[in-house]
Amino acid sequence: MAVYTDVSEDDLDLLLSEYDLGEALSCKGIAEGVENSNFLLHAEKGYFILTLYEKRMNKADLPFFLGLMEHLASNGFVSPRPIASASGNTVTETAGKPAAIIEFLEGRSVKRIAPGHCTLLGESLAKLHLAAGDFSIKRPNALSIDSWRPLLESCQNGKIQDQIKESEFQEINDELRFLEENWPKQLPEGVIHADLFPDNIFFLKEQVSGVIDYYFACNDFLAYDIAICLNAWCFESDASFNITKARKLINGYRSVRAISDIELEALPLLCRGAALRFYLTRLYDWINQVDGALVKPKNPLEYLKKLRFLKDVKTVTAYGID
Amino acid sequence: MAVYTDVSEDDLDLLLSEYDLGEALSCKGIAEGVENSNFLLHAEKGYFILTLYEKRMNKADLPFFLGLMEHLASNGFVSPRPIASASGNTVTETAGKPAAIIEFLEGRSVKRIAPGHCTLLGESLAKLHLAAGDFSIKRPNALSIDSWRPLLESCQNGKIQDQIKESEFQEINDELRFLEENWPKQLPEGVIHADLFPDNIFFLKEQVSGVIDYYFACNDFLAYDIAICLNAWCFESDASFNITKARKLINGYRSVRAISDIELEALPLLCRGAALRFYLTRLYDWINQVDGALVKPKNPLEYLKKLRFLKDVKTVTAYGID
Repeated sequence: MAVYTDVSEDDLDLLLSEYDLGEALSCKGIAEGVENSNFLLHAEKGYFILTLYEKRMNKADLPFFLGLMEHLASNGFVSPRPIASASGNTVTETAGKPAAIIEFLEGRSVKRIAPGHCTLLGESLAKLHLAAGDFSIKRPNALSIDSWRPLLESCQNGKIQDQIKESEFQEINDELRFLEENWPKQLPEGVIHADLFPDNIFFLKEQVSGVIDYYFACNDFLAYDIAICLNAWCFESDASFNITKARKLINGYRSVRAISDIELEALPLLCRGAALRFYLTRLYDWINQVDGALVKPKNPLEYLKKLRFLKDVKTVTAYGID
Repeated sequence: MAVYTDVSEDDLDLLLSEYDLGEALSCKGIAEGVENSNFLLHAEKGYFILTLYEKRMNKADLPFFLGLMEHLASNGFVSPRPIASASGNTVTETAGKPAAIIEFLEGRSVKRIAPGHCTLLGESLAKLHLAAGDFSIKRPNALSIDSWRPLLESCQNGKIQDQIKESEFQEINDELRFLEENWPKQLPEGVIHADLFPDNIFFLKEQVSGVIDYYFACNDFLAYDIAICLNAWCFESDASFNITKARKLINGYRSVRAISDIELEALPLLCRGAALRFYLTRLYDWINQVDGALVKPKNPLEYLKKLRFLKDVKTVTAYGID
């Protein structure tokens, strides 16, 4: 949960004066999003999410993120649409921070994932990939494989490195070297969400009503997005892998966009890479905790356990796919 | 800010099945309230606040708090109305916690207090006192003067007592003894809000649109509620006292309910007591911080500074009242 910046009544009135949304009737900080401050804003013209972009956000990336949301919504995908100010900007400013007002989408994220959710997730992920196909702005993946070694080295130099066993660093180092040597060079590319965890998808009446939080979206292998979702949705809380969910996810995806043979073959490796990426960023956040921050960093160990399972997966038959 | 308990989709569906509000369309944890978990719930029949009562809440007090809100709303006061379940209960249960679904009130709390807000506050406080006049349930003030010495002793035995100067404890002890010897015995009594800080009052279009958070409400001297508000609303951030705001607050109150001479005479002493009460509870929370809690305790020092100012106030002329 995260509300970092308070928006005073004067700030809010000034901000809304730039839009054609009427007066603010209420504005409540919500416990959603980890990187930014989010508010549920009720203005005379409806309900919206007000997001203030905090310092970890590179302002230069905002046209990509907000442009993508606009593009996806215009192509019929369930992305919230950024609202343009009277002067046509979707990025404005309040309380000294870059800000955006974004359509509010109904629906609820699920905490207890049923196999049926994975079918819907797979379909939505494929729809996102297709809808983003002709989006013109590019953004390289700042957390691609090239970034993992510097991240690992930063963690090894981190202040709690003595709390992590040398053998664990060795294990991660070996895995990273293996991935660096074997990472695919040629796979279908496009815009990926890159963070489609259960928090970021809303369900309503057994349909997907919204996919939110595009702040890790970038250009990369489309199948890497499937790998991130397999890791995030198909492990049970005891770290066991649920093959039924994996099959539903992949078949849901395939019902919308075909997965080529080279993508299928690459999936086990992409899943290992995706697990390492989330292990490393969580480890980094764990080591670099800010005292008094309102956000509790997620335990990296969950992803180390997943990685250990995934290292033994050689083909997609482990995901229930023939 | 505080969301302690997560409500799963199954919990929420089960809870809503007890009400006549339709299905839940969205439910977001909000950064409001310090003691409980609060969610902004959009159900098919409208917007509501879902509150889960956490362990610091004595469940036996809930009929008083929710009954009071219902009573105030029925008497035309801007309190949110608790929603009764199909079987007529306003207190239900979800995720293993007592829960209530309460009307959502529009409006925004103010961070920058203008004198005009104090007039509106004074009027609302008096209206609350009148509207609660015939409320039948009683609740003694658990944080009345009788509780302050045990609180102080608990703080002196607390784990960071060496961080507080002995002279400061001596100063508080002297003040407490003075208040114990001089605390009024006979003043008009009734139901007081007892925590009407700026967070707990919503303004909309230059009117008060809501008064929330009745979880400290109790029976006590009505003028003590005025004292709490004078302390919370009329000091500037540099601990200077704003006599204009105080006069507006008191005159706003008097425009609705007369303040008797004995109440006016007692106000300086009641303000000292109210300042000591908030100093002591903040000190207690400061000392007894829970590691990893999402709530940052408020600094008690603010109220020590206020107390030092108030000790020199002998009559209400200091509040701009003749």
